[in-house]
Amino acid sequence: MTWPGSAKMGGMAVGSTTQIRVRFAETDAQGIVHNSVYLVWFELARVEYLERHAGGYPTLREQGIESFVTESRVRYVAPAHFDERLTIRTSCRDVRGARFRFVYEIDRDGTRIAEGETAHACVDALTHRPTRVPAWLVEAIERAEATE
Amino acid sequence: MTWPGSAKMGGMAVGSTTQIRVRFAETDAQGIVHNSVYLVWFELARVEYLERHAGGYPTLREQGIESFVTESRVRYVAPAHFDERLTIRTSCRDVRGARFRFVYEIDRDGTRIAEGETAHACVDALTHRPTRVPAWLVEAIERAEATE
Amino acid sequence: MTWPGSAKMGGMAVGSTTQIRVRFAETDAQGIVHNSVYLVWFELARVEYLERHAGGYPTLREQGIESFVTESRVRYVAPAHFDERLTIRTSCRDVRGARFRFVYEIDRDGTRIAEGETAHACVDALTHRPTRVPAWLVEAIERAEATE
Amino acid sequence: MTWPGSAKMGGMAVGSTTQIRVRFAETDAQGIVHNSVYLVWFELARVEYLERHAGGYPTLREQGIESFVTESRVRYVAPAHFDERLTIRTSCRDVRGARFRFVYEIDRDGTRIAEGETAHACVDALTHRPTRVPAWLVEAIERAEATE
Repeated sequence: MTWPGSAKMGGMAVGSTTQIRVRFAETDAQGIVHNSVYLVWFELARVEYLERHAGGYPTLREQGIESFVTESRVRYVAPAHFDERLTIRTSCRDVRGARFRFVYEIDRDGTRIAEGETAHACVDALTHRPTRVPAWLVEAIERAEATE
Repeated sequence: MTWPGSAKMGGMAVGSTTQIRVRFAETDAQGIVHNSVYLVWFELARVEYLERHAGGYPTLREQGIESFVTESRVRYVAPAHFDERLTIRTSCRDVRGARFRFVYEIDRDGTRIAEGETAHACVDALTHRPTRVPAWLVEAIERAEATE
Repeated sequence: MTWPGSAKMGGMAVGSTTQIRVRFAETDAQGIVHNSVYLVWFELARVEYLERHAGGYPTLREQGIESFVTESRVRYVAPAHFDERLTIRTSCRDVRGARFRFVYEIDRDGTRIAEGETAHACVDALTHRPTRVPAWLVEAIERAEATE
Repeated sequence: MTWPGSAKMGGMAVGSTTQIRVRFAETDAQGIVHNSVYLVWFELARVEYLERHAGGYPTLREQGIESFVTESRVRYVAPAHFDERLTIRTSCRDVRGARFRFVYEIDRDGTRIAEGETAHACVDALTHRPTRVPAWLVEAIERAEATE
């Protein structure tokens, strides 16, 4: 499995930073965070990004737009453990038509824990058909990615 | 915390039996199943009970009825571990007005792992106001509990 | 299912307060937080309580002590939804021998969302046999509960 | 995000098939299965694969070998809903040194729901250093992939 994203991510402008504290319920019998939990954390990071830069998820939904996750990838670099404090840096990319992408880097005190990305598609909330990312959101993302 | 249910449960007529196999993601860093997972298992057991005896959840929803969990209790008797096969015995009780209750016993090869109960209320799917458990469901539960 | 705890909880001295923000992954297809998630939140509240008043979980484990959840109860008063901010008030009670109990109240802007309690037992980390709650922890809990 | 795996997966020899029934707790407020749950299902599929072809996870651990997930990818093709029955086809690939890979296809009655892959590394259970996939496991995988 090639990992084309990581080169780009090294130089990423960070649109948002999210602090995580590992929950005990997120660990498994190997004594580390279960691999599925990172996708939950990525979602927290997206929610904070949208809140900070675009008025939050509720604003999107009020406009009759839903978004679905169409792909996800995680590269697990070093294990995370109960009660550790982690930082997620998040950036939004490649807004085209109905589609956009988030990339993520998770660190613990400067040590890389994981990297990943998710791909998304906007759909009309009623018909569930693909619909263009609205212009105001495209602009909000451009602003967020340019200034930081 | 008193545990009034366990005496009754000792003599319970079993309306339904559900087989569980412990998932790795359900364990935590103590090497055992996380305490929150038992409520997920209770739900699996309820779904199977309703499927077997009352046409399943979809039938309820088609009739415009939703049900909410109003209380839950678990007594953790012995820890459960990855890949173990467990049996949940489930019984429905105390159907009165809009309310009903499920009791559960989880065993591993005859060893008691946990006991618990959940309380539920029927609500109208549109108004979310309490609504009587429909007569056909009351009868289905009576039949289920009488014959086994 | 009687609920003896709630009277006591009404007058509870609060040993610790934890802020929660509802994650999207914690919701279910009824559009509300799944009933199992409250036990995860109670655990977050316990961890914060122990960190604030007793040096945290790691201190316990360094002393060769583990603790297990032996019972849990939740009363779901009003549903919680994605992105809501909730407050958990936590109090530790009834420390006797190897056993102790936590009680919890979850509110959203002064509206009661849920109440609950968990019972715990200390065990020796090696033998997994019950062991008395250490004197320093009994004292830390007494201090925490007296001053607030 | 390119998806190089899917071409290969189209012609995959299936080493193992796992049946899944969607749990209510696995859904979210969009009314569909949460994107993180697919990684839990992939794990179920791996566990069944290893059980069927290689004596199961316990055999690996008895030999002092642990394995870690180093990467994961999911492509979400169509949403899954509560109570649906899904089939996961699983194949093990690219065993080289300490590393191996699983690929997965999830279908509902012949409709593709998701595809994915996970990459893994064997480590010594004590030192957590990479260790070659043992010869007996390499052979078991070759046999599994050849005959089906």
